[in-house]
Amino acid sequence: MKYVYLFSEGDAGMRNLLGGKGANLCEMTRLGLPVPSGFVISTDACLDFYEKNGLDAKIENQIFEAINQIEKLSNKVFGSTENPLIVSVRSGARVSMPGMMDSILNLGLNDSITKSFAKSTKNEWFAYDCYRRFIQMYSNVVMGIDKFEFEKQIDKTKKQNNINLDNQMSVQNLKDLIKSFKQIYKEKIKKPFPQDVKLQLLECVKSVFLSWNNPRAITYRKLNNIPDDWGTAVNVQRMVFGNFNQKSGTGVCFSRSPSSGENVFFGEYLMEAQGEDVVAGVRTPQPISHLKEQNESLFVELHNNALILEHFYKDMQDIEFSIEDDKLFILQTRNGKRTATASIKIAVDLVKENEIDEIEALNRIEPEKLKELLLPILDIKPENQPIAKGLPASGGGTCGSIVFSSEKAVELAKQNIKTILVRLETSPEDIEGMTVVGGILTAHGGMTSHAAVVARGMGIVCVVGCQNLEFLSANKIKLGDHIFSEGDILSVDGSTGNVFKDQISTISATFSPEYNQIIEWAEKYKKIGVRANADTPQSAKTAFDFFAEGIGLCRTEHMFFEKNRIFEMRKLIIAETKTEREKALKKLLSFQKSDFEGIFKEMKGKPVTIRLLDPPLHEFLPKTEAQIKELATAFDKPLEYVKEIVSKLQEVNPMMGHRGLRLAITFPEIYQMQTRAIIQSALQAKKKYNFDVVPEIMIPLASDINEFLFVKNLVKQTADSLILENQLTYKIGTMIETPRAVLIAEKLAENCDFFSFGTNDLTQFVFGISRDDSNKFLPEYLEKGIIKQDIFKSVDEQGVGKMMEEAIAKAKKANPNITFGVCGEHGGDPKSIAFFKKIGINYVSCSVYRIPTAKLAGV
Amino acid sequence: MKYVYLFSEGDAGMRNLLGGKGANLCEMTRLGLPVPSGFVISTDACLDFYEKNGLDAKIENQIFEAINQIEKLSNKVFGSTENPLIVSVRSGARVSMPGMMDSILNLGLNDSITKSFAKSTKNEWFAYDCYRRFIQMYSNVVMGIDKFEFEKQIDKTKKQNNINLDNQMSVQNLKDLIKSFKQIYKEKIKKPFPQDVKLQLLECVKSVFLSWNNPRAITYRKLNNIPDDWGTAVNVQRMVFGNFNQKSGTGVCFSRSPSSGENVFFGEYLMEAQGEDVVAGVRTPQPISHLKEQNESLFVELHNNALILEHFYKDMQDIEFSIEDDKLFILQTRNGKRTATASIKIAVDLVKENEIDEIEALNRIEPEKLKELLLPILDIKPENQPIAKGLPASGGGTCGSIVFSSEKAVELAKQNIKTILVRLETSPEDIEGMTVVGGILTAHGGMTSHAAVVARGMGIVCVVGCQNLEFLSANKIKLGDHIFSEGDILSVDGSTGNVFKDQISTISATFSPEYNQIIEWAEKYKKIGVRANADTPQSAKTAFDFFAEGIGLCRTEHMFFEKNRIFEMRKLIIAETKTEREKALKKLLSFQKSDFEGIFKEMKGKPVTIRLLDPPLHEFLPKTEAQIKELATAFDKPLEYVKEIVSKLQEVNPMMGHRGLRLAITFPEIYQMQTRAIIQSALQAKKKYNFDVVPEIMIPLASDINEFLFVKNLVKQTADSLILENQLTYKIGTMIETPRAVLIAEKLAENCDFFSFGTNDLTQFVFGISRDDSNKFLPEYLEKGIIKQDIFKSVDEQGVGKMMEEAIAKAKKANPNITFGVCGEHGGDPKSIAFFKKIGINYVSCSVYRIPTAKLAGV
Repeated sequence: MKYVYLFSEGDAGMRNLLGGKGANLCEMTRLGLPVPSGFVISTDACLDFYEKNGLDAKIENQIFEAINQIEKLSNKVFGSTENPLIVSVRSGARVSMPGMMDSILNLGLNDSITKSFAKSTKNEWFAYDCYRRFIQMYSNVVMGIDKFEFEKQIDKTKKQNNINLDNQMSVQNLKDLIKSFKQIYKEKIKKPFPQDVKLQLLECVKSVFLSWNNPRAITYRKLNNIPDDWGTAVNVQRMVFGNFNQKSGTGVCFSRSPSSGENVFFGEYLMEAQGEDVVAGVRTPQPISHLKEQNESLFVELHNNALILEHFYKDMQDIEFSIEDDKLFILQTRNGKRTATASIKIAVDLVKENEIDEIEALNRIEPEKLKELLLPILDIKPENQPIAKGLPASGGGTCGSIVFSSEKAVELAKQNIKTILVRLETSPEDIEGMTVVGGILTAHGGMTSHAAVVARGMGIVCVVGCQNLEFLSANKIKLGDHIFSEGDILSVDGSTGNVFKDQISTISATFSPEYNQIIEWAEKYKKIGVRANADTPQSAKTAFDFFAEGIGLCRTEHMFFEKNRIFEMRKLIIAETKTEREKALKKLLSFQKSDFEGIFKEMKGKPVTIRLLDPPLHEFLPKTEAQIKELATAFDKPLEYVKEIVSKLQEVNPMMGHRGLRLAITFPEIYQMQTRAIIQSALQAKKKYNFDVVPEIMIPLASDINEFLFVKNLVKQTADSLILENQLTYKIGTMIETPRAVLIAEKLAENCDFFSFGTNDLTQFVFGISRDDSNKFLPEYLEKGIIKQDIFKSVDEQGVGKMMEEAIAKAKKANPNITFGVCGEHGGDPKSIAFFKKIGINYVSCSVYRIPTAKLAGV
Repeated sequence: MKYVYLFSEGDAGMRNLLGGKGANLCEMTRLGLPVPSGFVISTDACLDFYEKNGLDAKIENQIFEAINQIEKLSNKVFGSTENPLIVSVRSGARVSMPGMMDSILNLGLNDSITKSFAKSTKNEWFAYDCYRRFIQMYSNVVMGIDKFEFEKQIDKTKKQNNINLDNQMSVQNLKDLIKSFKQIYKEKIKKPFPQDVKLQLLECVKSVFLSWNNPRAITYRKLNNIPDDWGTAVNVQRMVFGNFNQKSGTGVCFSRSPSSGENVFFGEYLMEAQGEDVVAGVRTPQPISHLKEQNESLFVELHNNALILEHFYKDMQDIEFSIEDDKLFILQTRNGKRTATASIKIAVDLVKENEIDEIEALNRIEPEKLKELLLPILDIKPENQPIAKGLPASGGGTCGSIVFSSEKAVELAKQNIKTILVRLETSPEDIEGMTVVGGILTAHGGMTSHAAVVARGMGIVCVVGCQNLEFLSANKIKLGDHIFSEGDILSVDGSTGNVFKDQISTISATFSPEYNQIIEWAEKYKKIGVRANADTPQSAKTAFDFFAEGIGLCRTEHMFFEKNRIFEMRKLIIAETKTEREKALKKLLSFQKSDFEGIFKEMKGKPVTIRLLDPPLHEFLPKTEAQIKELATAFDKPLEYVKEIVSKLQEVNPMMGHRGLRLAITFPEIYQMQTRAIIQSALQAKKKYNFDVVPEIMIPLASDINEFLFVKNLVKQTADSLILENQLTYKIGTMIETPRAVLIAEKLAENCDFFSFGTNDLTQFVFGISRDDSNKFLPEYLEKGIIKQDIFKSVDEQGVGKMMEEAIAKAKKANPNITFGVCGEHGGDPKSIAFFKKIGINYVSCSVYRIPTAKLAGV
């Protein structure tokens, strides 16, 4: 069996066997690029290593046969003092993976070889520099000795000799360092530094294989669903020396700009250096344009190679190269990482250049990154260091004055002062303030907490669960080591979760023509529709502007939280007589009618799905004694009476309490009022704007067919009583949120025009896990690798997903015309959308600022 | 098509077509009993009536043909003035059902027939009495005129004539009454009272059919799952007159005693009366023994008939009879209602008499009633009127002094004073008090509230959700119209929910030999095992005495709520250092070891399933500021520190929070300690008592396979480290409580020895309904007929049941040796047990006092 492949024996298609790096090295060799000769020890060898618990003799033989081949190609001999073959050893799995072994350079040197190497290269400094680097890397990477032990010695040497840079050290300095390094090795390992170059090589190979199973790699694989039995390959390659002389160097270049995406050759390099010197950042590298001035033919050769590689891989390439004595070598190529802006620009340009087609262009863009483009971002400078970090709940960056209450935010907003609302957590009571702040920062809560969900819906910057945030009093907080009061300035980055004490300016979002092109293609190739979650005419307008195909979830209760309205809602709940109740309902009716009409107007005839009241009534009532007192006074009711109502409505598990359509069984008036508002405003909008308005009325939380029919009839009777013949059509559907709704999906489907999967609640009930309480244990589940993803971010395909498939199959059988939507948080998550496409969901509904992401994921 | 059957044309097997009453009348006719001739209009006619929206002419014809036959058999003519045929008309569906039309007697009379009837019978009083009764019944039952209108007139007449009893009225009185009755009829109906007897008959028949669809009947059918398309039959029968003369009468008799079950002839009768007079209770009926003295041959004939019927139906009969001029007639027979004691005695006796076999005997006893026998009952006298009523949460009756706190109950218990704990609701903190009280009465909570569950488990009388109970202050309550303070006496009936202000004595439970026989037979024919829920050595002993096959659910947390223990549990939660934590764990370990050893001892080698800690930790912490302060002082910790822990552990939806095995992911020490306690005590018990102890360790709330395996390994490693080879076997299983556990049942089963369905939580999650909050809306669901049963009482077969079937099928495929238990409240519910038998559950586990019920239901 063949375990070792010369670079000339492989190609880019052999990634699984040779790893990504190895396959690319083979391919570049095939393409005739100046790649130093070398070979790949395959992933099969890795698996064999684990099976036999050691390196098999046959594999060792194949390795040394390959070394023989390299000796022939390079005219050098491994272990020879005369003309030594020096190599690098690098790991390279199928996908790039943290935790894998770092590169070992300059392998093949020992005391005597170095001595003669110095003579044969006529470059004593270079030879000893290589040897001291090798000892350093081998000791650290293969034998696990702390880097610091060696750096300490170098620092000492430089200080003693009053020099700043490594390459200013003398040959004697290097010889002394080598001596002390070998001493350190002997002390730590209890053996002298190995002089046998074959042993050095085999130890390195084994070390690479072992790194496949270090804890970091295992965790990463678990979290990313990478099978443990892929294994890693090892690349052994003849060294070319960027540190050989002044005509040598090393660098990194990109075939296009990774930040803007523009088609300009981009990169940096450092002369007289080996790879790690560029990373270390002691000397500042030169821009690649400088190379053009220094050595134009070499620059042209490099640029041509970059173009060849980009054309071959049909994507922007990130290329490592070295120059040895004015000769160029390409050491590695891979698809380059890029910003969201660059990814769009490059993808669209590559289509224009006929390199890829439109669908491929869409696949090249990470949907998740698109949302970055919609929001202003912080213009962070190196001197801006974060003082605290939370969860990046809603993207973009903002800077403003700290406020601790919703009221204060409203007050300052009137003075046009930009604020950041800092709270332990937010609640529906804060809605009014949340609409006017520039950003929200909370100490508690996860990615799906109230603050996070509302902020994403509104496109407001939001960082939640900031553990370094501590309330010293109601008006004083500690963030990391810093104390802040109301009015102090803070900058918050919702894309990273970072919080800064500095005043950082923001850069606005603009849409490039390429961006619009991508959205257009996404529309063209979509496999699933994208609607928006929007509760107000304003957010409906944004949704329309972002090309939403409709509103998939309009949460009517969000309309009640505004100050005026919550007052009437409370009046309704506290009402003692029918007259009081009817008066409050009338007020609420007029609020809702104007809201719905505004939404219908903005959506210009696109579908609008309106969910009837969902939360339990106690969410509308105050909680503290003082607030209750205030309420009683405002309504002129006895305190005891109001207290009793508040206490009666309290719930042990509100998520599983008196909410959703259960409210309509006991208080049918609210759903009747809401239905009236929907139908009357639809009639009005149809007449006023001449759109074909077809409202979709959504009944939440069904779990029983009789229950659903009771409420459906209530809605239908109310609606039909307001509609003259052929005046308006409307749809009635339900949310699939409880497991029992899935079990009776057939019966529900017979009586529904549409289903909308409320995957947030369905996830909660399927797991028996409260989203609000899950941050007490789910983070630990993720950390321990028990679950591989946040179940409230990406849908749980094996559980919740299975139930969705069951519901869809049953529903289609009972009602072939039924349509399926998803309106949980998962509706905006690309991974979940990929799943929803597969199981036959017609559309997802997501927060407005996730529409582009969802559209792209929906292709 | 035949719609009308003479009594001689049917038999007992034709119940579906002729209704229960009709089929029995036919059967009695076939058996040669003295049944007045008559016929049955079939249920098919009823369906035809609804289909055609009226009585078809063909059916009318068949009715009058049958009338013809009766005329021939009785030598009387319907509508004749000379020799009139008078009939009764009664409804009779397949099963007896409230809401159906009452009987109409004496039909076939009008002004002129009555006049000549008076002459021909030579009994003017009798004839006019019949006619006034007929007008009264027809007007009320068929035409819907209020009874009160007529009774008012009778009362007036009696008052004017200074007489007490109806039969003391004079002929003239009756004639005057008839006149005024007809006047009332005309006023209300705007038509004169019908003189056409055929019309009278047809109106009655239609009225019976219409009563099938009156609201009460519809609701009853909905609640009892009776199809709407069964329809009702109508029985038309020649009248015999118990009011004919002094040698006439009417009565009811039972072939055996319906209260004790003894084989003695039992009944009562009233001379000179028609059926309704017995019910009205104006005159006191005579015991049947009196008839023996009055007319022995008639008594013997009646007794013989009763024996014939009992032998035919092979069950105790409830028989209606009339005597006309010394001649006996049997009018109806049915299986008699009986007390729990009687049902057992009769069933066992019938087996002894070779009437039925053992299995039939078991079927004859309503399992639900068996629990009555285990508890003392209130000796309620007619003068004891309830002052309030709640839900009958835990059976039996008790009388005691009111206490409002657990502490007071403990204090009085030491003085041997029996108490009743009255609370808004109970919480785990009350456990100590709850073990010493005689009864519990709460204002809030449903049948599965904390108070109800604990009380049932302990066999304590308990009434919950008593809406007439109001707290005026901490020490004063209002029950209905009465005010009570601490120390006042109350009697509480847990079987009916009634609360009395009187001191009512109780009657203790004793087990008859027949009871023991029934339990023995249940054991012999069982199709499902019955284990007990028991958390202490005492309740384990009771479980063993009640023949439980093991313990299916030992809730370890219940052991922590006792004063000493909760202190150590709190210490553990509040601990700041590892030393503090270990100290607390050590104490808890010793408590649990002694508990488990006691339980293993009492169960004598029968299986014991121990559930590891399930509730969230905050359940062990105090809630009020004062209690938290106390705690901080007791533990010598800063108040702020303790407050922070309490607040951090708080949860929004505790039912879906940080509980069950989720605790073991974050705090593995507790499960390790519990495992240690189980294994060490099992080893100890095995050695000490030489039982084959095989503990079953149950891991609660799994929803993910990695999560389960993580905890299983934790338990297994701890257990195995304590066991020498072959020293002890133990089992590990999980609870199926979350819908997701069902979805991954295959994977769980591969790693489990047993599953136990926690149907309480599974019901909660499948519906998304919190048991604790469900009383805010589920009662209205039941009332409106939206759901037909309390989902927390009888398992929801269509939803939760389907998931159970799915889990069982998947699990069996993965692990054919796995066993299935049910340990929710449903485990003690006969209806649910019938379902569990069908789907392959191996055993149910129920509260101790439901064991006999479950055993019987398990046949």
